Amino acid sequence: MNDQRVQRVLEGLEGKGLTQALICDPLSIWYLTGYYTEPFERFLALYLTSRQDAPTATLFCNRLFPDAGDACPNVVLFSDTNSPVPLVANACDHNAALGVDKDLAARWLLPLMDARAATGFVLASDVVDDVRSVKDGREQELMRKASRINDEAMGWLAAQVREGVTEEEIASGLLGEYRRLGAQDHSFTPIVSFGANAADPHHEPDQTVFHKGDMVLFDVGCKYDWYCSDMTRVFFTAEPTAHQLEIYETVRRANEAAEAIIEPGVTFAEIDYAARSVIEDAGYGPYFTHRLGHQIGLVDHEPGDVSASHGKPVRPGQCFSIEPGIYLPGDIGVRIEDLVIVTEDGCEVINHYPHDVCVLDV
Amino acid sequence: MNDQRVQRVLEGLEGKGLTQALICDPLSIWYLTGYYTEPFERFLALYLTSRQDAPTATLFCNRLFPDAGDACPNVVLFSDTNSPVPLVANACDHNAALGVDKDLAARWLLPLMDARAATGFVLASDVVDDVRSVKDGREQELMRKASRINDEAMGWLAAQVREGVTEEEIASGLLGEYRRLGAQDHSFTPIVSFGANAADPHHEPDQTVFHKGDMVLFDVGCKYDWYCSDMTRVFFTAEPTAHQLEIYETVRRANEAAEAIIEPGVTFAEIDYAARSVIEDAGYGPYFTHRLGHQIGLVDHEPGDVSASHGKPVRPGQCFSIEPGIYLPGDIGVRIEDLVIVTEDGCEVINHYPHDVCVLDV
Repeated sequence: MNDQRVQRVLEGLEGKGLTQALICDPLSIWYLTGYYTEPFERFLALYLTSRQDAPTATLFCNRLFPDAGDACPNVVLFSDTNSPVPLVANACDHNAALGVDKDLAARWLLPLMDARAATGFVLASDVVDDVRSVKDGREQELMRKASRINDEAMGWLAAQVREGVTEEEIASGLLGEYRRLGAQDHSFTPIVSFGANAADPHHEPDQTVFHKGDMVLFDVGCKYDWYCSDMTRVFFTAEPTAHQLEIYETVRRANEAAEAIIEPGVTFAEIDYAARSVIEDAGYGPYFTHRLGHQIGLVDHEPGDVSASHGKPVRPGQCFSIEPGIYLPGDIGVRIEDLVIVTEDGCEVINHYPHDVCVLDV
Repeated sequence: MNDQRVQRVLEGLEGKGLTQALICDPLSIWYLTGYYTEPFERFLALYLTSRQDAPTATLFCNRLFPDAGDACPNVVLFSDTNSPVPLVANACDHNAALGVDKDLAARWLLPLMDARAATGFVLASDVVDDVRSVKDGREQELMRKASRINDEAMGWLAAQVREGVTEEEIASGLLGEYRRLGAQDHSFTPIVSFGANAADPHHEPDQTVFHKGDMVLFDVGCKYDWYCSDMTRVFFTAEPTAHQLEIYETVRRANEAAEAIIEPGVTFAEIDYAARSVIEDAGYGPYFTHRLGHQIGLVDHEPGDVSASHGKPVRPGQCFSIEPGIYLPGDIGVRIEDLVIVTEDGCEVINHYPHDVCVLDV
């Protein structure tokens, strides 16, 4: 158990008027207890309560899961043949509302409601997400390390571009490179886009063949000791045209304008606006079709957008992406993405691969 | 849209007194419409209703998802910045109960309840699971093909066993072999267990080194055109001891006893018992620690156990695993698993890799 993190969650619950909650996200359970398993369709939950007459934390585990050891002082086991619902209901204070994880599936939530486990059921995992959002010193070190590996991998990717290679060929070699660099896995399916494929921000690597002159976009990330990286760079493979250069430089300026204003107190919406207004002023507003960024940590996309709809101020220790883009269908797509960590008086950009125009010699 | 499948689902809902349901499982949506996307944290659902005054099917898609084309005649789009909840509530009959998918997350279910989208919320995806459970002719062909590839892959796996190889080395080569054989992917993380590692039925391949004499267990499966295979075999690498042979032959007899009694009308529980009683009679009952099998199709584990707690009779077209095992911790683990398809008057075992004792020449 990480008592400090659990305490912060209980305080957050109290702020919502809650004395109990059921956490299901396996990574949140790992974050709070050190125990990790992927339960698939089976039930796994951590019950937390601030009541004085009950254990603070109870972990509900199927007997088929790996042993929780001493991760949690109070573990309740069940089998495939007996439902965990009565066991969870039994742990709950029936005379109070229960905070529930946004990921709690209907297969468990509806039976818990039928069992009248609590007076009401309220989404409360935002409290855990909020605690996870602020990275401590050790977590920041791991985020930096994952991004350092990603910087190195970007150099490797650029070196793979050659006449005739396919997107899939480059993408399929990346995991090996990450492992050589000490990472464990991808943090998401890598995006490798040649030419106009980059105009689809979610293009998946396919059999598209590279030809000299195509612009090349890489949006990739790895996991290092549980923590994720995520970075995008775009390369030229011939002297850029004025049109290409205008798009590229607009995106670069948008990225840097956003990174320049980040400090505690500035809102996520203001950061989004700093980048978006550069793109709008250049006349490309309609072609920047997504939020500016997302928080990141144990998963690539953590809750809390960097977007117009997120008016909260950023806090020291928060880590998120800054990834403006311009997408002209059938023509060109450019996105430049870094991860930043908010510091006491600004931010630290934890990707160091340059933003400058780079023409690869292919 | 597959109108026939949708019709069977609506009939199943009617049998539960329901006129409307919200399906979220992406593979169920694919099964009913031909549209597939992995929504991750975003909302994707297919609303079905038997009301005459509303479209039978409405697909709710985020604008960021791939275009649904003509998969569903009625598509409702939304963005990251507007919640799908009011749109879904608007489609629902507020004066009737709504069947919901077991996978519907609390983040959507609780707001739908707050919006009073229906008079009640009832788990109903068992209806879809039940329709998916019975494979039509085309689906059976794909299941056979996936298992034929798995039979061939088992031969390849057996040929990889040599002094000094690690579990992970063999496991990491399997995907390439599957692809050479025409499959697209693993259907689950392959299990490769040397020696006593096999006594943990969920052992993951690690750096354990093979030494001649170790027994070797492979539990592997691939996906062929969406459909999954899953098979387990155990090999000897030296003349088996009497103890090893007794365990192996007990498991083999349990597997074959279960496969021998399968025909329409026999219950899943009876099939479980047929295998379990062989193992119990041999004195190893406490060491057969899991259900006999699971249904399989678009995913490796589909709902509907082959276990003592599932008293329904099997029906033609259902496909499931028969996988008895005996696990003596620190000593030995044997499991022999085939997939079967229930026919009109018996069953077809769709794995053909032999059950006989096989001593590899390593």
